Amino acid sequence: MKTYLDCIPCFFKQALESARMAGAGKKTQKRILNEVAAILPEFSLTSSPPEIGRDIYRLAREITKKDDPYLKIKDKSNKLALGIYNKLKKKVEHSHDRLLTAVELAIAGNIIDYGVKNSLDVSAELAKILNEENKVIKEENKEIFDYVRFKSALKIAKTILYLADNAGETVFDRVLIEEIKRIDKDKRIIYAVKEKPVINDALIKDAYVCGIDKLAEVVSSGSDAPGTILSLCSKEFLSMYRKADMVISKGQGNFEALSDARREIFFLFMAKCPVIAQDVGCRVGDVILFSHRGKREKHN
Amino acid sequence: MKTYLDCIPCFFKQALESARMAGAGKKTQKRILNEVAAILPEFSLTSSPPEIGRDIYRLAREITKKDDPYLKIKDKSNKLALGIYNKLKKKVEHSHDRLLTAVELAIAGNIIDYGVKNSLDVSAELAKILNEENKVIKEENKEIFDYVRFKSALKIAKTILYLADNAGETVFDRVLIEEIKRIDKDKRIIYAVKEKPVINDALIKDAYVCGIDKLAEVVSSGSDAPGTILSLCSKEFLSMYRKADMVISKGQGNFEALSDARREIFFLFMAKCPVIAQDVGCRVGDVILFSHRGKREKHN
Repeated sequence: MKTYLDCIPCFFKQALESARMAGAGKKTQKRILNEVAAILPEFSLTSSPPEIGRDIYRLAREITKKDDPYLKIKDKSNKLALGIYNKLKKKVEHSHDRLLTAVELAIAGNIIDYGVKNSLDVSAELAKILNEENKVIKEENKEIFDYVRFKSALKIAKTILYLADNAGETVFDRVLIEEIKRIDKDKRIIYAVKEKPVINDALIKDAYVCGIDKLAEVVSSGSDAPGTILSLCSKEFLSMYRKADMVISKGQGNFEALSDARREIFFLFMAKCPVIAQDVGCRVGDVILFSHRGKREKHN
Repeated sequence: MKTYLDCIPCFFKQALESARMAGAGKKTQKRILNEVAAILPEFSLTSSPPEIGRDIYRLAREITKKDDPYLKIKDKSNKLALGIYNKLKKKVEHSHDRLLTAVELAIAGNIIDYGVKNSLDVSAELAKILNEENKVIKEENKEIFDYVRFKSALKIAKTILYLADNAGETVFDRVLIEEIKRIDKDKRIIYAVKEKPVINDALIKDAYVCGIDKLAEVVSSGSDAPGTILSLCSKEFLSMYRKADMVISKGQGNFEALSDARREIFFLFMAKCPVIAQDVGCRVGDVILFSHRGKREKHN
């Protein structure tokens, strides 16, 4: 997805948030905003938002000299999500369609705000995300929630590349991967995280803490962009990306980076902002599960 | 009110909206954002948001060469608001406290989004704004809705300076001014609009179209800032400002510009953004009626 002009105010917002997360004082925060402003004329709107986002987060890291400003929040998110893991499993076990419920949970895990929450709040927020209204949306609009195509692709895939998004969400990914393995324990699953810290994106450590390593091969994409930008990924990762029978991509950042990819990719995320919603053709807050290829075919 | 760092992303949003409203193409829109970025390091955070906003809107006007990009929306807003004038009057007539209802309407008129609406939608939106939940908030928190102090000040004031905000809203102001005149027809009311176009702020023409001139002296503040910045106002206006027994200030922009004023001012607005909400100590969407002096006294 290309960067829209509406993303520009949001880049400043992200830079400010990142500066604050790094504990920068007001002067440093302003300096970071000035530096973002200085590179704004160079932003190419044909780049995807995570490409520009990467420059912005780097700049904030360099100026604040904090390599991983979101470390605490990531650790907290993992802990809180692990705290409701048993609840998530019960939800799956008691559902009519275990896989569908696991998919819904994996998407819901993407938008929980772990900021100032305890596991009770996280459970409550989860219930809100998975409310009946969303279910109606999914049933009404198969174009943005194409579970049938997802299930068919999953059935025949032997190797699945799973692109992670945030820490904490990793626990929800584990629940989905467990369901996939339950269907066929011989499926090979590769779980790809970011190479270096960027926002609250999961790193190898987060995947291990959340127990993903017991189910999947945990690898790094080789990049520190807040989305899987292929041109920045390692050769090893690209080889896995090409060879995988199926790619499952989590989160908005990965969608932004890969929405024009040549191979089929299944995107699982919640539309968090009006720009994405417009690009996808959905509403803010919609639960998304589609492959861009499947979506195009339905259109033609 | 000083400018917060959180206002900076919003300045870019405003510049973009203004460029689009002027019909600028994408290249020009980007150019305007680049120019805002270029002056960002000079922004003084001790300035109030309308001071910086003024520079931004000027810049957008100069680059797009459109002197009044919001002209159409202003005309439409006046028309739509005039279309429900009779309804507003009936609402006042059938209420237990006519003045209170008129005050509520005057505040509600500030946040109606006339963008793509017809009078029916405007009526519906109005009903939503004036719902019971807001009433509860007001009754609970006298600090941000000090109707008692407002009424006392109004009772003894002979000359009232009324600072206008947006076109369309002007009709709601008329309803309030009519109530004030109904209490005492000899009160002198001066209705001050902006000197030159800025966003959708009311100009002299809008006040006339909405019939304010039959009730009040319509004057200009002498400034084109999106808020009444005293240092930019005309001598004539400043003299009225100093001599008035009571100043009623409408909208967020006027609050931002005058929240530290030395004289007592009654601010009527809805808190539209988290920055204002934090500054005031209220929630986004809260209906505000207070004088900063009254608020300070309650605190001490």
